[in-house]
Amino acid sequence: MRYIDAFNHFFPSAFFQEMLQTPAGSKDLGKRMRGIPAVHDIDVRRRVVEEFDDYTQVLSLGLPPAELLVGPEQSPELNRIGNDGLAELVAKYPDRFVGYAASLPMDVPDAAAREAERVLAAGANALQLFTNVKGLPLDDPRFLPIFEIAAKAGRPILLHPVRTPATADYASETFSRYEIWTILGWPYETSVAMARLVFSGVLDRFPDLKVVTHHLGAMIPYFSDRIRYGWHQLGTRTSGEDLDAVAKRMKKPVIEYFKGFYGDTALCGSRASVVCGLDFFGADHVLFATDCPFDPEGGRGFIREVIAVMESLDLAPDAREKICFRNAERLFGLGDG
Amino acid sequence: MRYIDAFNHFFPSAFFQEMLQTPAGSKDLGKRMRGIPAVHDIDVRRRVVEEFDDYTQVLSLGLPPAELLVGPEQSPELNRIGNDGLAELVAKYPDRFVGYAASLPMDVPDAAAREAERVLAAGANALQLFTNVKGLPLDDPRFLPIFEIAAKAGRPILLHPVRTPATADYASETFSRYEIWTILGWPYETSVAMARLVFSGVLDRFPDLKVVTHHLGAMIPYFSDRIRYGWHQLGTRTSGEDLDAVAKRMKKPVIEYFKGFYGDTALCGSRASVVCGLDFFGADHVLFATDCPFDPEGGRGFIREVIAVMESLDLAPDAREKICFRNAERLFGLGDG
Repeated sequence: MRYIDAFNHFFPSAFFQEMLQTPAGSKDLGKRMRGIPAVHDIDVRRRVVEEFDDYTQVLSLGLPPAELLVGPEQSPELNRIGNDGLAELVAKYPDRFVGYAASLPMDVPDAAAREAERVLAAGANALQLFTNVKGLPLDDPRFLPIFEIAAKAGRPILLHPVRTPATADYASETFSRYEIWTILGWPYETSVAMARLVFSGVLDRFPDLKVVTHHLGAMIPYFSDRIRYGWHQLGTRTSGEDLDAVAKRMKKPVIEYFKGFYGDTALCGSRASVVCGLDFFGADHVLFATDCPFDPEGGRGFIREVIAVMESLDLAPDAREKICFRNAERLFGLGDG
Repeated sequence: MRYIDAFNHFFPSAFFQEMLQTPAGSKDLGKRMRGIPAVHDIDVRRRVVEEFDDYTQVLSLGLPPAELLVGPEQSPELNRIGNDGLAELVAKYPDRFVGYAASLPMDVPDAAAREAERVLAAGANALQLFTNVKGLPLDDPRFLPIFEIAAKAGRPILLHPVRTPATADYASETFSRYEIWTILGWPYETSVAMARLVFSGVLDRFPDLKVVTHHLGAMIPYFSDRIRYGWHQLGTRTSGEDLDAVAKRMKKPVIEYFKGFYGDTALCGSRASVVCGLDFFGADHVLFATDCPFDPEGGRGFIREVIAVMESLDLAPDAREKICFRNAERLFGLGDG
């Protein structure tokens, strides 16, 4: 089976060097990332990828977003370095790196819009957005042009969670310990961002927008009927906000908006969860992805685990092809897609 | 099939009258709860329950916990009123209400311990704990006696999510809108509380403790391999805390602690999620429950949906009986269990 890995992470050399100069990069972050060669050394990365037959990657930058590394005077340039670096790798190694998702200087919304237009014109296959911008939710009106550009270009958003400054404070009281924020907080954050895109009307405004959510829809599939019935009662459970107006504005049942998202299979394995996510989204809205190289082996672990899950699933040939590569071809504009 | 509903909510009359006198109860909360007769009117509740053959309930108080309704000078008394009210209903209608979980004045830990001992001696079948106590996590040393009492009595904790004051602040920046905190934040909060019980060593200290998590383990089953591999790398991803010491203290792989919890089937339906949760916990650690009466129909909706899911599952007869009633009999000390 052909596999296109829709969501995985790499720091191109020039970006990585810049990152190591930043306050965070010069300390723990840099140390940690240097310890994962497959995330910044293209030769190591290629060797990992080449262990798998008929397997290619659409590359995205890793975390943190540039706006958490540098100030707004530098983030447009840092994002451009990252995006050009990914474009270069795709040009140089088209056999294994078939596309890339560009990241944007979202802390400077005008610059983000210009960068989105620049990279999409130059052939970027998607835009990677993080679930908040220094605590600002993605449905903030400042970010509407980005969604409009993506929708017009017919290219998807890859939605990746990121910690918020506000949750860092929250964390200091209850949640900071034990890396809970990373392991559990990220999927929560993705789910919150999805809900805000639904209720704020962003998805109604751009009905053709395609948003691929990391970790197979995060919390949404497992809690699908909690969402269906809970938000059916929107405004009856809490007060202090005019939720009746929100409910009236909705053009379809809340759960249908959530089903309109796409999910990737980057759940580190979890076969029964992939079955659950597929049941929710359907084969047209799930894309194979691995989160390479953030497994305990530093690169090949999650590729192997997710492929094993895919091979174990009882799927019609057509559905299997959609999930493994056809949806990616279509969304990213690859090959015949 | 016999069904024992392990987790659902009712306000006994005396408790409900007290609740309506509190600041929150005299406003929106009271208004909302008065709009759901099956949560406070025993005749309405009995009629709902009697629509289902061979179906009984183990009752728990509804939210919020007493410490969010009244101050510490009143919460011990308010909890006692609630617990005695539930005990009375079980004594009066044993054909449908086969047991109850007592709630505790956790804001006054000494009083909580005394109340736990009192109710367990008097025949309470479980203790309902909320996932934080006004923002304090459950692994705070002040709460250790409660876990010890539950473990010694051989009765389970029913773990229910509740909003924290800190998340209310967090919410004000990003998450407050659209009831996101209730629908998605609660399962996140449950998952965080589970993780803290794991990493703080509470579960090692009380290996016989049984903790039944609402909403089928919340986020844990869907993200089981994210947890397995992510927390396998505990301490390698973040810094600022001595996580090596935590990792060394663990007596078994992190994921095994999470599998030691129990989950209830209160997912409002979501058949594929129940399959996923069962795959994670196994039939010995899942209990039928419905969250009655918080469905859009005010009582019968979730009972009907969850029973329909149970009937649709392809289960061995032995596994089905465990989930539907035998695990509940065993944990709650009912009948021959």
